Amino acid sequence: MNGDPAQGKFIALEGGEGTGKSTQGRMLEQALRQNYGLDVIMTREPGGTPGAEAIRALLLDPPGEGWEPEAEALLFAAARADHVARLIRPQLEAGAWVISDRFVDSSRAYQGGAGGLGDHAIAALHDFGSHGIRPDCTILLEVDDAVREKRLAARDGDTSDAIGGRSASYHNAVAASFRKLAQGDPEGFRIVDGTGTAEKVHENVMAALAHILEGRTA
Amino acid sequence: MNGDPAQGKFIALEGGEGTGKSTQGRMLEQALRQNYGLDVIMTREPGGTPGAEAIRALLLDPPGEGWEPEAEALLFAAARADHVARLIRPQLEAGAWVISDRFVDSSRAYQGGAGGLGDHAIAALHDFGSHGIRPDCTILLEVDDAVREKRLAARDGDTSDAIGGRSASYHNAVAASFRKLAQGDPEGFRIVDGTGTAEKVHENVMAALAHILEGRTA
Repeated sequence: MNGDPAQGKFIALEGGEGTGKSTQGRMLEQALRQNYGLDVIMTREPGGTPGAEAIRALLLDPPGEGWEPEAEALLFAAARADHVARLIRPQLEAGAWVISDRFVDSSRAYQGGAGGLGDHAIAALHDFGSHGIRPDCTILLEVDDAVREKRLAARDGDTSDAIGGRSASYHNAVAASFRKLAQGDPEGFRIVDGTGTAEKVHENVMAALAHILEGRTA
Repeated sequence: MNGDPAQGKFIALEGGEGTGKSTQGRMLEQALRQNYGLDVIMTREPGGTPGAEAIRALLLDPPGEGWEPEAEALLFAAARADHVARLIRPQLEAGAWVISDRFVDSSRAYQGGAGGLGDHAIAALHDFGSHGIRPDCTILLEVDDAVREKRLAARDGDTSDAIGGRSASYHNAVAASFRKLAQGDPEGFRIVDGTGTAEKVHENVMAALAHILEGRTA
């Protein structure tokens, strides 16, 4: 987020459904805490604060006929604004490292890319709602379609919410959008192959974060 | 909204708490239906659709510590996007007249003016969420501070929600913002004095709408 050494670092885990973000988030949290002695906050989007979790419930189980893309993007931006103001910024300022399972690049890939609203609109909402805060590093976890489908099937219907339950072509468009975002910002993103065992992927995540862990002893 | 004669007209009632919007809305609804034979939909903001009513509940009774101004403005814009897409536009296109107790000028006066976010930001959210739809006429009901305070006191705590319950100086800033918006757009607004009996104010509302009722027989 900035170069103040007293401030914590902000790491986002991104990727489509079934790419292993939550598992990798927990492993990363443990490694930063146990091996580096850092104060670590693990959080997620949409959610992370009481207000944002209430908005999450509306997003994943919409009242009425479901949200139009614009209303959905505004709700994500509102949830993120609360998450940033009430949790992420204060924790970073207090010196904690914050890991978020999804952040603004999910809105860019889902609503902006796959949903057709465009990157400019999502960026404008993020500038307004959250003063454009960016993670120090965004890890994009990628798996091929076959691996993702296998993992999702194993979840037993846990992805039947209003967004996870969308069509395969929507999820393919999400994956393509994520890749494009990562390729367009090699400073901010690290792409990590999410296939293989959780331990192997975790090693790759730690290697991808070497530049922000530099100077700290494991 | 446009000049298509097959399309209904869209009228918004605006003003601070205690200016008589709801009472005047009901009287206007009845007059348009009974005296002009129009198909009339009476609605309100935030709310008017299942999705927007769910957002209304979050706005007026926030989980956690209450919303920051940016999150609040995003939630209002999300509720309005749903209201416009699911109710207002389809009803206007079907030929109904729509009366809304509050619309975007409330966001401009409350969050933009009194809340300090500025008119440009609110307009940008409205352009994004609702393609910038404007009422055919916005009636601004104004009462002086003493009348408003008396009416609010008579409501017996019904204004203790998260927005109605804000300070007197906030509500004075809201009233000043409304006036400035109306003075800046004499084509779109009609200012109506809300003091006096409901019947007298209703007469003034009907007179203020003469330009869009022109050619119709009462």
